[in-house]
Amino acid sequence: MFEFDQFSGLTALGEHRYGVTLSDRWNVGPVPNGGYLIALAGKAMAEACTHKDPLTITGHYLRPAVAGPAELVVTPVKQGGTFDNAQVSIVQAGSERCRFIGAYGTLAQISGPSWREAGPPQMPPPEACRELPKTVTIASRYESRFDPASTAWLSGEQGPSEFRVWIRHVDGRPNDALSLLLYADALPPPVFNRVGPSGWVPTVELTVHLRAVPAPGFVQCRFHTRFVTSGLLETDGELWDSRGELVALSRQLARLRG
Amino acid sequence: MFEFDQFSGLTALGEHRYGVTLSDRWNVGPVPNGGYLIALAGKAMAEACTHKDPLTITGHYLRPAVAGPAELVVTPVKQGGTFDNAQVSIVQAGSERCRFIGAYGTLAQISGPSWREAGPPQMPPPEACRELPKTVTIASRYESRFDPASTAWLSGEQGPSEFRVWIRHVDGRPNDALSLLLYADALPPPVFNRVGPSGWVPTVELTVHLRAVPAPGFVQCRFHTRFVTSGLLETDGELWDSRGELVALSRQLARLRG
Repeated sequence: MFEFDQFSGLTALGEHRYGVTLSDRWNVGPVPNGGYLIALAGKAMAEACTHKDPLTITGHYLRPAVAGPAELVVTPVKQGGTFDNAQVSIVQAGSERCRFIGAYGTLAQISGPSWREAGPPQMPPPEACRELPKTVTIASRYESRFDPASTAWLSGEQGPSEFRVWIRHVDGRPNDALSLLLYADALPPPVFNRVGPSGWVPTVELTVHLRAVPAPGFVQCRFHTRFVTSGLLETDGELWDSRGELVALSRQLARLRG
Repeated sequence: MFEFDQFSGLTALGEHRYGVTLSDRWNVGPVPNGGYLIALAGKAMAEACTHKDPLTITGHYLRPAVAGPAELVVTPVKQGGTFDNAQVSIVQAGSERCRFIGAYGTLAQISGPSWREAGPPQMPPPEACRELPKTVTIASRYESRFDPASTAWLSGEQGPSEFRVWIRHVDGRPNDALSLLLYADALPPPVFNRVGPSGWVPTVELTVHLRAVPAPGFVQCRFHTRFVTSGLLETDGELWDSRGELVALSRQLARLRG
């Protein structure tokens, strides 16, 4: 069993209520990471939906979670038609840590035109990229290979707040939609290239759009922050699979303290 | 009284419950527009929050709303600290039409660094731009001046799915945070430049991040769709005020039928 599946097991506690033990393996400092939590949420909401592909999920991170027991309380919002909608709260010790809302569809049943006005990021292949130092626990969950031209902060230099990076599960777990939810918030914030590894850049809200189930292999990502306003910033992500298909878009609102 | 304020009056019906009469003035065909609904939601959630600036709001559009009476059912999610969180459903005839979740803060109390890696869109001034034909009711709510180089569809031509446009309330209403929620989904979808004015491109989910309260005058916008996957598409918006400040970012997931 792969480690994400081992540490995301849901125990039914009642109708639309699940128990889970949050692992510390996805921790950044003492706090389970937002990507791990949104992937758990994506898994729990699917239980309340006929359609199983999480086309868009938004999470609001209310209070830090901690490793240990948690309850996922799912609310079915709408069923029927092209999209189902559901909501889930992750609760620990009576306190809601985060809340998610999602729209689910069945990608194979959705049809319409396809085109793109941009392609995958230009970057060297994984073997010519730079592995992230394992300074936080979560870094050991993934193989992540950074384009050396986007790692100014690792050399004590300054550069644009953009990371270009290859990522995959370290244990060989095949990619699925949940992998993309994990990858969407698995890495340091790209503003580190501007301000250095300045610690905590907490996510206020994270939205991930799924476009396709990713093929096996590395997922190629670009994470980019263009606008920082009194510490409020967006990080926009594009995730591409090994076939060169766009598989997800992400955007988070986060906060960089002064 | 300005028209948005006239048609967004909330009548308290009980704790965290408000009545509103949805106007048909923001209609696209028979359906009140998503920008009007997210602005109403933004107003109602603020009632449950100590902080009043809607830093991020996400809406899920479940079923079309109709002009007429509606109830807004607000759920306070979290109060205290830098951010408050709330949720609201817009319900008509016992059926939930859309659901929103938001994080509120007080912009004047949030501090941190500021920088940007991109500026406002390059485009001619409003007087050299092209007014949108008033083919749908909502178009009469705004003065909108399109960069003629981004209006291929109006000439029966094809071009990139990007609009550059100046927008303001037609009745002189001063801009505020609610204006940005309105403007974020007030215009035709930019994919019209690729596929022609093909009718209905319904919003599945819309997220708006507020960065600053906009100055008076036109708000300068860029709306751009880069990726269309079997009809699933994002429209990303940047909104800039007359001082040249980034005031909001938006992203929606919408569906273009084949």
